[in-house]
Amino acid sequence: MRIAEIGEFGLIDRIASRLPKLGEGVVVGIGDDAAVLRASDNKYLLTTCDIQVENVHFVRDQISPQQLGLKSVAIKVSDIASMGGIPKYLTISLILPKETSVEYVDGLYEGIGQACELYGTELVGGNMARSPAGIIVDVFLVGEVETERVLLRVGARVGDRLLVTGNLGESAAGLALLLNPGATCAEAHRQRVLEAHLTPKARLQEGRAIALSGLATAMIDVSDGTVSDIGHICDMSHVGARLWAANLPVSEATLAAARATGRDARQMALEGGEDYELLFTAPAERADELAQQVQQQTGTPVTVIGEIVPVAEGISLQQADGTRVPLRRGGWDHFR
Amino acid sequence: MRIAEIGEFGLIDRIASRLPKLGEGVVVGIGDDAAVLRASDNKYLLTTCDIQVENVHFVRDQISPQQLGLKSVAIKVSDIASMGGIPKYLTISLILPKETSVEYVDGLYEGIGQACELYGTELVGGNMARSPAGIIVDVFLVGEVETERVLLRVGARVGDRLLVTGNLGESAAGLALLLNPGATCAEAHRQRVLEAHLTPKARLQEGRAIALSGLATAMIDVSDGTVSDIGHICDMSHVGARLWAANLPVSEATLAAARATGRDARQMALEGGEDYELLFTAPAERADELAQQVQQQTGTPVTVIGEIVPVAEGISLQQADGTRVPLRRGGWDHFR
Repeated sequence: MRIAEIGEFGLIDRIASRLPKLGEGVVVGIGDDAAVLRASDNKYLLTTCDIQVENVHFVRDQISPQQLGLKSVAIKVSDIASMGGIPKYLTISLILPKETSVEYVDGLYEGIGQACELYGTELVGGNMARSPAGIIVDVFLVGEVETERVLLRVGARVGDRLLVTGNLGESAAGLALLLNPGATCAEAHRQRVLEAHLTPKARLQEGRAIALSGLATAMIDVSDGTVSDIGHICDMSHVGARLWAANLPVSEATLAAARATGRDARQMALEGGEDYELLFTAPAERADELAQQVQQQTGTPVTVIGEIVPVAEGISLQQADGTRVPLRRGGWDHFR
Repeated sequence: MRIAEIGEFGLIDRIASRLPKLGEGVVVGIGDDAAVLRASDNKYLLTTCDIQVENVHFVRDQISPQQLGLKSVAIKVSDIASMGGIPKYLTISLILPKETSVEYVDGLYEGIGQACELYGTELVGGNMARSPAGIIVDVFLVGEVETERVLLRVGARVGDRLLVTGNLGESAAGLALLLNPGATCAEAHRQRVLEAHLTPKARLQEGRAIALSGLATAMIDVSDGTVSDIGHICDMSHVGARLWAANLPVSEATLAAARATGRDARQMALEGGEDYELLFTAPAERADELAQQVQQQTGTPVTVIGEIVPVAEGISLQQADGTRVPLRRGGWDHFR
């Protein structure tokens, strides 16, 4: 049987079910944004890794090496942010074709260094190898979080509100422009969505504010796609979710890029992925307070976009007229 | 300028010199077997990663997926062992072509699971991506070590003896047999050197015994090649080294495989690499005591193979007749 037949998530489930049982030191193993490990009495250690493969995750002439370095680190910081944690130490594996220029590598590490300064992390090691085809960057990040503040995918309860930082769909809008070089829209819109796609920011301050509030019940970052990532919270929390269409935060820039490329902006927001916004849940009676608090502390808008419902209801979109349509999980699967 | 012109180590030096300055939490950053990080009052955190690339580090029809899984983890445990530490948590990035069979992935994780049990580590996370060409396995390992027991590449002093666990050159002998399918030698020898190459063992117990003795001054594992790895100790400790040819531990199996393939067994021992034995230094007057102690505690032979000399003398091999020949550092460079 080929892995394409069971898909990335089927393969991960299969591996996880066959591994030796985990010990007491492992609070969360495979199946969240980062592993959660007992480190000391009051802190957990968080570990996470993510790979960027040329012609799978990026195309070399569409992203500068500096942007690639910055993005590779930011998306890992996002996984630590989504657990409410603080990123600490980076280790990077770099696989390069022999003909790569030193200037390209310089650019890559310029971006990595910028990300280190931006997020307060340090590059402490790594390794290099020759690539048979294309550039591959694998970033490992170790972080930490107070034991009483960690936020997981599990924890959402029926009745909770679903909140999100920033806007949804901007990264997909940027990708749509890159894939349609002829499409035109206002330069400010173009810049904004390209930046969202090429150099996404990790919502580190926001994640800390949400965790320290003590009000949130579960959290994840938007990497695979909004519906797919809400689905991860639903799976782990054994709940369903109802999104409110009228509340989805979609920027003017995303709308403009969607029009320019003949795409549906709402679909970009729901399925696009790579926004690296934080999706989180909180009790209904405290949701508005939490949204305001995070917005005041960080300057980043926070929107209540739906509610947590019983698991049997699945994931649906409630439209302005009150009708509901089921949402397909979609999201990216590497092997299908 | 292409990276092939400055080589892997030139590129690493260039990157390290351009990175933001490291903070107080980082005891050792780039440039040792693992990064050493302050974690608590009495323990350091150790982090290390290493990648195995198909057709660069391995050839798919020469190593089973189970062997590849076992080896990928063992070589990382070896880096923690070489600092005197204890391996704790594994995170693995796996890049696979879509046409990979599920059975291959099962085999890989069977080997990873075996390594977890053998070394007392736990697989706590990872990520998967589609590969444009070949299988790539990137293993990230977090370990720990008591602050007063950590052993680094720096610390060797003039007059110290140089010691090594086990035998040198067996992995290179195994590789030589794989590359010369027609070569014949006794089956027991063949099995032994193939096992050394395909499923090397990390010297974890030995590393702990050496560290806990409090007698060793520096340590590294033999991955690039004996002379190259001694060179890393020399660079960091600002010393030279004189190896005693008569003392180099070369097994009958390596001698047999060298004869069968027309290769020089001593060269295999000095330059072959991938033996994952521990190379360490200790004061001359305590070296024999340390060797015996480790051997008694672990059953693994330990040999005094040379001495640490002033840096101006470089690295040389002292032959049976007392003459000395300079040794070239050689070792594997991915980009040259």
